[in-house]
Amino acid sequence: MAAILNHFTSNPIRPLLPLNKLKPLSSSTKTIQVTTTDSNPTNWSTINADVDARLKQALPIRDPIDVHQPMHDLVFSAPKTLVPALCTAACELVGGEHKDGVDVASALNLMLAASYTHQYLPNLLQRPNPPSFPHNIELLTGDGIYPLGFELLASPDGVGGDAERALRVILEVARAMGGQGLVEAQYMKVKRAKGELDVDCALMRMCERGEGSVYSCAAACGAIVGGACEEDVEKLRRYGFYVGMIHGLLDGVGREGDVEEEVKRLRFLALKELEGFDAEKVRAISSLVDADTTRCVQ
Amino acid sequence: MAAILNHFTSNPIRPLLPLNKLKPLSSSTKTIQVTTTDSNPTNWSTINADVDARLKQALPIRDPIDVHQPMHDLVFSAPKTLVPALCTAACELVGGEHKDGVDVASALNLMLAASYTHQYLPNLLQRPNPPSFPHNIELLTGDGIYPLGFELLASPDGVGGDAERALRVILEVARAMGGQGLVEAQYMKVKRAKGELDVDCALMRMCERGEGSVYSCAAACGAIVGGACEEDVEKLRRYGFYVGMIHGLLDGVGREGDVEEEVKRLRFLALKELEGFDAEKVRAISSLVDADTTRCVQ
Repeated sequence: MAAILNHFTSNPIRPLLPLNKLKPLSSSTKTIQVTTTDSNPTNWSTINADVDARLKQALPIRDPIDVHQPMHDLVFSAPKTLVPALCTAACELVGGEHKDGVDVASALNLMLAASYTHQYLPNLLQRPNPPSFPHNIELLTGDGIYPLGFELLASPDGVGGDAERALRVILEVARAMGGQGLVEAQYMKVKRAKGELDVDCALMRMCERGEGSVYSCAAACGAIVGGACEEDVEKLRRYGFYVGMIHGLLDGVGREGDVEEEVKRLRFLALKELEGFDAEKVRAISSLVDADTTRCVQ
Repeated sequence: MAAILNHFTSNPIRPLLPLNKLKPLSSSTKTIQVTTTDSNPTNWSTINADVDARLKQALPIRDPIDVHQPMHDLVFSAPKTLVPALCTAACELVGGEHKDGVDVASALNLMLAASYTHQYLPNLLQRPNPPSFPHNIELLTGDGIYPLGFELLASPDGVGGDAERALRVILEVARAMGGQGLVEAQYMKVKRAKGELDVDCALMRMCERGEGSVYSCAAACGAIVGGACEEDVEKLRRYGFYVGMIHGLLDGVGREGDVEEEVKRLRFLALKELEGFDAEKVRAISSLVDADTTRCVQ
């Protein structure tokens, strides 16, 4: 566990477990079975609807239409993730307001949509359901979406009403999205697509920098806007990281090998971070370690 | 002038003067002559050196090298603009610290470098001195540079030490860089390159959303971190806008027509905004309305 915790301090890249030591799942086991938490105590689709409503407000189809229509379309066509659920649940777990969690989740969703759009532009990765815009529109609208995410976080009528908290959240988000976070993961994906990267060596790092980085940011930011103490922010950051790793591994492994033991271990570590929180409130967020939860947020 | 001021409130797009009413310059006059301010009372190249030093600190060539080396190279190969000079001069004009102006200017420089890099990716515009990286690296490193700019603004050891001011600056920067600012201007440039845009109709708007938006942001942000009152922030915002329009028009018109009268008018409006500031201090910033100043910042 020390290696994982280092991720949050000095940021060395140490795989949780070398991939070649991961035991394969039996061929009949496609998803991780969850028995210790309720499968869906919170209606995650409601949270996604709240985030979509916030984004529709932040992204009206206004002048110039040529720019804003594609921005709108690209944001709402990006795939759903657990990020909004994680962020909002962390915020509420520490006693914060639902709307603050939704605000941060909306900003994160914008940036993930921009990142998702750009990820497919080098034509090295095949985008499912590609939009009908030419590449230059995708490129520029992606560039327009990033700052809108930061604008949302800094706006005084939202999270920005508390400048100290908003600034901390902006710092967290900027780091998670940048060259030592999601951008590195995407860079690795592109290299992998070009056959320049050994997947066995790179998968753990790719997940750490991608899902690990983004999910830990989502949970920490939810905790920060919810007014958590430092200790709880760090617990939820680690919880988010483990959830991100689980989802990243299950998503990324697919055709290349399975990771049953490692996912079980991550799940155990994740749930351990929730000890000490209000038992009733913890049920919602704890369900997110369940791989099946992804089905609830589509 | 009312039309210009509206730009800062309800944001309607009203050209300062229709382009077909602009008088051509005589063929022998290539730059605007300046007689009312000293030509270079401040050594702008020193400010650019300060900004570069700050950026070298913020952008060490660290792990992963594959990501950070191109980020570093793309940032330092982007063309110089008046933005750092304008931002730092505005900060100092209102009694702020030089280092705060440099911090904001550095963040703006990062975002302009990312934006410059992406602008040439659709292959519709010809980049002078193109970097040796493939397009996918330019794309992803651009994506990594944007959040680094916001990280710089939010860092507690810099501008972020004053959360209220930092948050205002982040909001300003996010708006200037987004879909109603620089991204729209770039979108128009791409359309122009494809022959889908009438330059005569579009040039003023392109300058408003591009240089006008970015320069007004630089001056306003310099004033904000310098601790200016609201009235002075707005005066410097307008000053920056006029300076941006002058430089945008001179830069953009080149082969398509000249704009002597309009530039003279903008110059008059710009200098008017500086009335009431300390006469000695105003000399530095006022020199930026001089088109020739661009030569001082290379």
